[in-house]
Amino acid sequence: MSKKLTSRTEDYSKWYNELVVKADLAENSAVRGCMVIKPYGYAIWEKMQAELDKKFKETGHQNAYFPLFVPKSLFEAEEKNAEGFAKECAVVTHYRLQNDPDKPGKLRVDPEARLEEELVVRPTSEAIIWNTYRGWIQSYRDLPLLINQWANVVRWEMRTRLFLRTAEFLWQEGHTAHATKAEALDEAKLMNNVYANFVENFMAIPVVQGVKTESERFAGADETYCIEALMQDGKALQAGTSHFLGQNFAKAFDVKFANKEGKQDHVWATSWGVSTRLMGALIMTHSDDQGLVLPPSLAPNQVVIVPIYKSDEDLNAITEVANSIITDLRAKNRTIKFDNRTTHRPGAKFAQHELQGVPLRIAIGPKDLANGTVEIARRDNLTKETVSLNDLVNRVEELLEDIQASLYKKALDYRDSHITEVENFDDFKNVLENKGGFISAHWDGTNETEDKIKELTKATIRCIPLENKEEEGVCVYTGAPSKQRVLFAKAY
Amino acid sequence: MSKKLTSRTEDYSKWYNELVVKADLAENSAVRGCMVIKPYGYAIWEKMQAELDKKFKETGHQNAYFPLFVPKSLFEAEEKNAEGFAKECAVVTHYRLQNDPDKPGKLRVDPEARLEEELVVRPTSEAIIWNTYRGWIQSYRDLPLLINQWANVVRWEMRTRLFLRTAEFLWQEGHTAHATKAEALDEAKLMNNVYANFVENFMAIPVVQGVKTESERFAGADETYCIEALMQDGKALQAGTSHFLGQNFAKAFDVKFANKEGKQDHVWATSWGVSTRLMGALIMTHSDDQGLVLPPSLAPNQVVIVPIYKSDEDLNAITEVANSIITDLRAKNRTIKFDNRTTHRPGAKFAQHELQGVPLRIAIGPKDLANGTVEIARRDNLTKETVSLNDLVNRVEELLEDIQASLYKKALDYRDSHITEVENFDDFKNVLENKGGFISAHWDGTNETEDKIKELTKATIRCIPLENKEEEGVCVYTGAPSKQRVLFAKAY
Repeated sequence: MSKKLTSRTEDYSKWYNELVVKADLAENSAVRGCMVIKPYGYAIWEKMQAELDKKFKETGHQNAYFPLFVPKSLFEAEEKNAEGFAKECAVVTHYRLQNDPDKPGKLRVDPEARLEEELVVRPTSEAIIWNTYRGWIQSYRDLPLLINQWANVVRWEMRTRLFLRTAEFLWQEGHTAHATKAEALDEAKLMNNVYANFVENFMAIPVVQGVKTESERFAGADETYCIEALMQDGKALQAGTSHFLGQNFAKAFDVKFANKEGKQDHVWATSWGVSTRLMGALIMTHSDDQGLVLPPSLAPNQVVIVPIYKSDEDLNAITEVANSIITDLRAKNRTIKFDNRTTHRPGAKFAQHELQGVPLRIAIGPKDLANGTVEIARRDNLTKETVSLNDLVNRVEELLEDIQASLYKKALDYRDSHITEVENFDDFKNVLENKGGFISAHWDGTNETEDKIKELTKATIRCIPLENKEEEGVCVYTGAPSKQRVLFAKAY
Repeated sequence: MSKKLTSRTEDYSKWYNELVVKADLAENSAVRGCMVIKPYGYAIWEKMQAELDKKFKETGHQNAYFPLFVPKSLFEAEEKNAEGFAKECAVVTHYRLQNDPDKPGKLRVDPEARLEEELVVRPTSEAIIWNTYRGWIQSYRDLPLLINQWANVVRWEMRTRLFLRTAEFLWQEGHTAHATKAEALDEAKLMNNVYANFVENFMAIPVVQGVKTESERFAGADETYCIEALMQDGKALQAGTSHFLGQNFAKAFDVKFANKEGKQDHVWATSWGVSTRLMGALIMTHSDDQGLVLPPSLAPNQVVIVPIYKSDEDLNAITEVANSIITDLRAKNRTIKFDNRTTHRPGAKFAQHELQGVPLRIAIGPKDLANGTVEIARRDNLTKETVSLNDLVNRVEELLEDIQASLYKKALDYRDSHITEVENFDDFKNVLENKGGFISAHWDGTNETEDKIKELTKATIRCIPLENKEEEGVCVYTGAPSKQRVLFAKAY
C-alpha cells in the first residue's frame, strides 16, 4: 500500500479517509457502518479516556454500568427522546438461531424464539437509567446522584464515516439527578466546561462554548450546552454536549424525592457525553499532507528513537546511548520507544512515524556518536535540529511543551480568522462558499428561519455562544429585529 | 431495607443474592437477565481491569475495539463455534421503530426496515476478529499479533444470577495470531498463568490450573486451559479460560501468512478471557454473614475513618487528626475515606462499612484524642485494637498486608481441605453430597463416562490439573484403567 496521502487541497474528505486507515487508526468492518478501532487508534482513545475519567472523578462522579438493551416499553416512555431516536435504532427481536432447514450448514433465526418485547440496542441510556434511578432515589439525602458510564451505543446512521459518524461508537454518558433546577443547570454547565478544558488543554483544539437552538437540542432536553470546534476545511464539528433535561425523564419514569420539608417533588436531571468522534476532531484539526499530527498530551509515543547504523558495533553503541535517553525521559514520565526493528530501513521508519504523528523523532548515527549529539525532528513543523546529549532531556521537555502550545495556537489562529461577522444574506452565502468557517450573524430566533437557511445553504446554527454580548441588529435572512448574533456553519 | 443478611448456613444462595444487592454491588434490571453494576461494584471491577490491563500490556498485548455485531454469515463460518453459541444469541433483525398504527403513543418495529442479513450481538468475538485479521496478516513479519479487547458480550442464558451468569456481561477477550503451533500453545499457557497470578495475588483466591476435557472445551478450541476456584459452599467456579484454537479460525476465515521461506500457511490462534463473573468469585470466596470481605488490593477504600463526637469542638479536633492520617496514608498510595456524613450515626456507618467490606475501620473519639490513640477494626476477622497515633501508619501498612495474606491463606486452607481423593463411586457420591469441594478421582477418559457421572451426580470434570502426576488407577465409575486423576466438582 502506498503511504502517500491525497493532499488536503485536492480532496479533504479523501485525505481524511486515507489518513485514518494508513496511520493505522481505524478501518471499516464487515458490519455496515461499524468500525474496527485499531491498536494505534485505540491507544489514543485510551489516553483521552484516562484524562476524562480523572476529571469526572475529580468533580465527584462515579462510574457504573447499565444494560446494553432498552425494552421497547421503556424506550418509548419519554416521548421526545423516543421520537428522536426511533428512526435509527437497532432492534433485537429473537434470542436464538437454529439450523436453516433449507440451507445445510447455514443458520436462521428460530421463529419460536421471538422475544415477547423487543429490545432496542441503546442509542443513549436515559430511559434505562432513569427507570433504574426510580429505585435509588427516595429522599434529598440520595441527591445529587452523579454517575458516569463508559459504553458502546448504536445509532443506525445511513451515511457513516470512520470516527465521525458510525453506527456503533464508544462514548461516555454522564447521568445526574438533583434536588433543584439551579443545581442541575450548574451541573450541565460544569460538565460542558470540563469538556472545553479537556479539548483545549489536551487535544489542543480551541472550542466555542454555547447553547443549542431548540431545533438542534438533544431529544428530551430543555437546554443543550455544547462545545463547537472548527476543522481545517472550514466545517464545524460538535465535540461534546451537556444537556439540562429538566424534569422530563423524572416525570416519564416517575422519579420523585422527599425534600427537606418532606414534600414530594420530581427530580431534576442532566446528561452529557463525548464519544470516539473526538478522534475525528483530533485528526482533522492538526494533521497535514504528510499524515497525522498529534499533540504530545495524547501521543501514545511522544518520542521515538531511530538508530542509523551499518555495523553491529555501531548498533551496540547507539543502543547504549538510546537506553540512557529512555531511562532519563521515562523518569520525566515521557513515553518513548526505541525503534530497533531490523525488518525496516531508517527511511521507512521515518516515514511511518511521520505518518503516525509521533511528536519528536530522535535519530542517532555514527557521526552523532562521535560528536555526542543526536538529531531531533519535530513532527508539527517538520524542522530538525542537532542537540548535544548533555542538553537532550531538557530540550525534549521544551520541545514537547512547545509543540503542544504551537498546535493550539495554530488551531486558534485558524479558528479566529474564520469567524466572520456578516450583515446580509448575500455576504452570508458568499462567505460560506468561499471562505467557510463560522459565520456570526443576527437571527430572528424562529425555527422557520433556521430551517430555511439550512435548506438554502446547508449551514446550521452551531450555537449561541455563552460569551455573547447583547447587540441590536436585524436577522440576516428575514430582517426581523434581533438582540444577539449566533454562529452558523456547515458541520460534520 | 434491613441490613441483616440471611446466613450462609441457612441458605448460601440467598445469602449471596442478598449480599450483592445490600452491599450496593449490583442489581437486576428491567431487561431480563441483565444487571446494573452499581458504583461500588463497578469501582471494584475497575480495580481488576486496571491490574489485568497492566499485565496484558507487560506481556506485549495492545488493546483494540471490534464491532458489537457479527453478521450471521460470519457467525456461522466456524462451525463448532457457531453451534456452541447459536442457541443463546440475541439477534438484531430491524433497524428502525415507527409509531404503532394500532396503539397511539406506542412504537413497533418498522416492517420495511428489516436487515438484509441478521446481526448477532457478539457472544464472543472470534468470528468478527478473525474476519478482520485476514486483512492484517500477510507475512511472518505481521506475527505474532497480540490483541486484547475490553467489551460487553451477550449470551441469552435462561437462568441468570448477578455477576455469575448474566445475559450481558463485561469481559476482556484476548485474540492472538502466531506463526507456529508451539508459539500459540505457549501463549495460551502464558495467559492462563497471568490469570492465575492475578486471581491469587490480587483477589486472594487460590486456583487450580488445568486443561478442560473435550466436552468442556470452548466451542472451536483444540485445547482449553482454565483456572478453577472453590467457593465456600464447596462448589467450583471457573474463573478464567485460555484457549488454543489451532488453525480452526484461520481456516474458517482463510487467514494465511507467508513464512520465512515464502511458503503459505494458516495462522495459529489463541483466545482468552475473564469477565465480571470474577466479581462473583471474589464475593463468594471471602465474605461472611456480616457482609462483604474484600482483599485490600481490590478495595475501593482500604481504610475508612469514622469520627465519634458530641460537640462541634470534638469534630473539629477529630477532623484535624483525620486529615493528618489521610495525608500520611495517601503518601503510601493507600485509599482512605473520611466518613464525616452528618446524616448517619457512627453505629450506622460501622454497619455499612462492615457490609461493604472496607478492610480497616479507624474510629476516633474524644477519649482517643486525649490519649493520642485511635481504634482500628479489621473487617476480615472482626478484631479491634487501640493504636498510638505515632505508630498508626506503620500499623495500617502491616494490617493491610496481613489481611491480604490471611484471606489467601484461609481460602487456601479451605480449598486444600476440600480436595478429596476417592477410589470408588459410592465414596464419590458420598463426598460430593456431604462434604463438597473437588473430588480427585480416576476417570477412563471417555465422554460417555463423563456424561454419565454428570447425569447421576451433577458433578463435572472441572479440569485435568497441569501439575498432575502420573498414577496407575481405575476409573471411579467404570473401573477401566486410568493413568491420572482429574478434578470433579459441582460448579457454578
